[in-house]
Amino acid sequence: MGHSNMTTHRILIRGQWRESRSQATFQAENPRTRQPLPDTYPVSAWPDCEEALDAATQAATQIRRLPAERAASFLERYAGRIEDRRNELVEIAHNETALPVSPRLTDVELPRTTDQIRQAAAAARDGSWRRVIIDTGSGIRSCLEPLGPVCVFGPNNFPFAFGSVSGGDFAAAIAAGNPVIGKAHSSHPGTTRVFAEAAHAAAVETGMPEGTVQMMYRLDHADGLRLVSDRRVGATGYTGSRKSGLKLKEAADAAGKPIYLELSSINPVVILPDALEERSDAIADEFTTSCLLGAGQFCTNPGLVILLDTPASEAFISAVAHRFQQAPIGTLLSKGVAENLQRGVALLKKAGAQQITDKTAEQPSGYSYPNTVLRVSGDQFIKESEVLQSEVFGNAMLFVVARDVQQACTVVEELEGNLTGCVYSHSTARNDWACERLASGLRRRVGRLLNDKMPTGVAVSPAMNHGGPYPATGHPGFTSVGIPTSLTRFSMLCCYDNVRPHRLPTWLQDENPNPGTWRQIDGRWTQANVGE
Amino acid sequence: MGHSNMTTHRILIRGQWRESRSQATFQAENPRTRQPLPDTYPVSAWPDCEEALDAATQAATQIRRLPAERAASFLERYAGRIEDRRNELVEIAHNETALPVSPRLTDVELPRTTDQIRQAAAAARDGSWRRVIIDTGSGIRSCLEPLGPVCVFGPNNFPFAFGSVSGGDFAAAIAAGNPVIGKAHSSHPGTTRVFAEAAHAAAVETGMPEGTVQMMYRLDHADGLRLVSDRRVGATGYTGSRKSGLKLKEAADAAGKPIYLELSSINPVVILPDALEERSDAIADEFTTSCLLGAGQFCTNPGLVILLDTPASEAFISAVAHRFQQAPIGTLLSKGVAENLQRGVALLKKAGAQQITDKTAEQPSGYSYPNTVLRVSGDQFIKESEVLQSEVFGNAMLFVVARDVQQACTVVEELEGNLTGCVYSHSTARNDWACERLASGLRRRVGRLLNDKMPTGVAVSPAMNHGGPYPATGHPGFTSVGIPTSLTRFSMLCCYDNVRPHRLPTWLQDENPNPGTWRQIDGRWTQANVGE
Repeated sequence: MGHSNMTTHRILIRGQWRESRSQATFQAENPRTRQPLPDTYPVSAWPDCEEALDAATQAATQIRRLPAERAASFLERYAGRIEDRRNELVEIAHNETALPVSPRLTDVELPRTTDQIRQAAAAARDGSWRRVIIDTGSGIRSCLEPLGPVCVFGPNNFPFAFGSVSGGDFAAAIAAGNPVIGKAHSSHPGTTRVFAEAAHAAAVETGMPEGTVQMMYRLDHADGLRLVSDRRVGATGYTGSRKSGLKLKEAADAAGKPIYLELSSINPVVILPDALEERSDAIADEFTTSCLLGAGQFCTNPGLVILLDTPASEAFISAVAHRFQQAPIGTLLSKGVAENLQRGVALLKKAGAQQITDKTAEQPSGYSYPNTVLRVSGDQFIKESEVLQSEVFGNAMLFVVARDVQQACTVVEELEGNLTGCVYSHSTARNDWACERLASGLRRRVGRLLNDKMPTGVAVSPAMNHGGPYPATGHPGFTSVGIPTSLTRFSMLCCYDNVRPHRLPTWLQDENPNPGTWRQIDGRWTQANVGE
Repeated sequence: MGHSNMTTHRILIRGQWRESRSQATFQAENPRTRQPLPDTYPVSAWPDCEEALDAATQAATQIRRLPAERAASFLERYAGRIEDRRNELVEIAHNETALPVSPRLTDVELPRTTDQIRQAAAAARDGSWRRVIIDTGSGIRSCLEPLGPVCVFGPNNFPFAFGSVSGGDFAAAIAAGNPVIGKAHSSHPGTTRVFAEAAHAAAVETGMPEGTVQMMYRLDHADGLRLVSDRRVGATGYTGSRKSGLKLKEAADAAGKPIYLELSSINPVVILPDALEERSDAIADEFTTSCLLGAGQFCTNPGLVILLDTPASEAFISAVAHRFQQAPIGTLLSKGVAENLQRGVALLKKAGAQQITDKTAEQPSGYSYPNTVLRVSGDQFIKESEVLQSEVFGNAMLFVVARDVQQACTVVEELEGNLTGCVYSHSTARNDWACERLASGLRRRVGRLLNDKMPTGVAVSPAMNHGGPYPATGHPGFTSVGIPTSLTRFSMLCCYDNVRPHRLPTWLQDENPNPGTWRQIDGRWTQANVGE
């Protein structure tokens, strides 16, 4: 264990920082030095989960009795406390993930995180997310209500904005009125600890029930499966690898527990020859920046580019390969990412892809892999589409050169569900027919369709869909980014039939409790009271 | 095969009535005579499914290109054609299900069915179901769009209103822009055939693509599992037994295909002593009518009544038992229902329930079972809650007599997810505290909470939730009754980011294509155009 701190960190259960009931421990690693970081964290076993579930169940009942304003205040206070500890968070996250301090952790991901939390607070206060429907004729009223304790499994690649007790799933679950049991990603336990401390302090300050925010650092796989399928759980949010996610999905599905997964995506980009003839350099720059952002470790990283077999496409491939070779090589999040990337590229090559960048670029001292461009023909892609569309997480990408528009459409038809799909075309309506055919194939396979724009920017907009058909996620009807839409995942539809007026939840009563809340009354969306 | 018609009926595939490629056949039975009905229907094997899936995939693409008006016209024409064949439908359904002609098939279920279809048509035309969100600041717009071919498995108990090519799932799937592959319930194939004929004729008349409505009579279980998990399927709607439903769910879940199930529910009713002191006779009448409606074969049949241990409760139990014994015994839907009912009552008794109605009432000649009232103590229910809350589908019910409010709450805590839950209390606010405690326990376990009203009426209201937590359904966020809400099940969330204005779907363009469509523009619900 080297120079490890002999004290194992405590977990946050029932409003207390307490020792894990388990003996097993782990340490995170600094990806830049490949050395273990000094702190020691517990691997929780079932007794920790059991206590967390009990406390969360009580908290769920208590939160239901509080006004929505309380959760909003908590989230806002929490955002402030995150900002108070900004430097500490950035430093520890930089050591645990190797993600750059700037531009990234300090000036991009941290403000995004607090902004999301504040938007979630506003949504909780506003209440429009509840989709109130009042049918005065039948005496029936309905709305969305909290579902119960939400488990959040955060990913490795966004230690702040998707963190298990700081990210979008957390903020959405809390804003919808649920307690959260967060499972830190084991590559950045220290970052998660600081967030949990800030959240806990904010919860105490705003009088939220014990058990509103709980956090464990790591679980054995079997306990994870047991946790998401426990009777007391309302739902689970998971962002991470497809393999682990599908195991959790199987367990949750068998228990009838909703689980929202963000699994994997290669985010196909189609670039038509006309676009390249018009602005090849600009697109090559834009693509290279997007694809190498964060060493390619984005859920929306454009990993597959479909071109038509033209000289402009060949020139574009060369231009991108050149840029990839010139670009600095980023440090990867972990040893596991580096190994998977190497393995993934090897698999693509075995399936017929040809590597066109150097294999021996000079690399940084940490975990890394050369910026890699591969290419394959449309014929070969169609023949080996299962392997050739596997996600290779990191700074590698694959060009598919299709014979013609028809074959490009066939390539698209072979694709599984993805988070995003883009089409680049000439700035005029030239060849709009090709664009339309390709876009209509992509449309059914992706959650977000883009034109002339790379997919890596995921705006926190109410119209955003950071989701898509399986296996990009587990359900094509929900988004994990975008407020208030993402809150609906952690709610259930509750109907009140002939319920006496004074027993209705406030937001279903005749008088709109908050003049800002949109409600649907007799088919009409309004902010007015019933009868007005 | 007795006097069976030697010609096997044809299935509806790709807009043609054609012979099944399979040899196996079956006949339905008349539950009143226990004799097979003369017509012979095929049990389809995989080749039929394969053709249906291919045709549906093509239809899905074609329907996307049509204006929503077309599906609306189709549904309206179809409702008219159902009314044209009303007498035939009622006669054949009566022979296949023994459900009374009146009041029920002619004057309740058929008008409800055409009403639902017309409401779905109006929703398709209106477009508000799409939940359009326009964020002008970020250039991002989103809405719900059709998901692809929908498989519908209808139940035995509502041959019209939940029928696989006539019921709520069918109407919702079509209105949302999807083709439907219907699987008839094998207890009423003839009824389903007449509906499919009417739907097919309406589809031809209104120029809907071949493959918009397809119908098979029966499938082997393995083919059913393969169907719902096929890559070409968008989603599945299933209403029926928990056992079969969970098998389909497992297959669909493993393939990442949404499946919306309505499985089983005992619809707990809590009746507080004050309510009985005030209006015991009225409640006994209301309860008996609701519980014996359709021989108890309703998804929302109140099968469990929780009372407190008081003299008023004892008198109520006697009054209900008396009414059950006096009431005519209905004919059950099938031999299977009768056998399961007998088996279910035996299981309840084995788990400690005591039967308080006669076991030897005079029965009709068809499949039937005596109207049955059972009772059990709160202590015993808590001890054997798993068995004692199993659904006993048909004209039997169980009273749970709890020691006090606290124990009644514990009984409620033991309940699984249900479609509905009711509380009856004194007409004044007397003892509202008890009501509140019990209702808050029920609330988290049911989709629809009622006061002073039995659950069997399921109004087709936009605020209805005919759904609830598992195992009542497979997901607590969706309803299978209520328009336009039920349409969302058969859609995916589609986001457009920086997509050129002329390429946006019409309903996402600046100009609202239909002045009636509600859209959310920059946080405000409006029927106006963007910028107005």
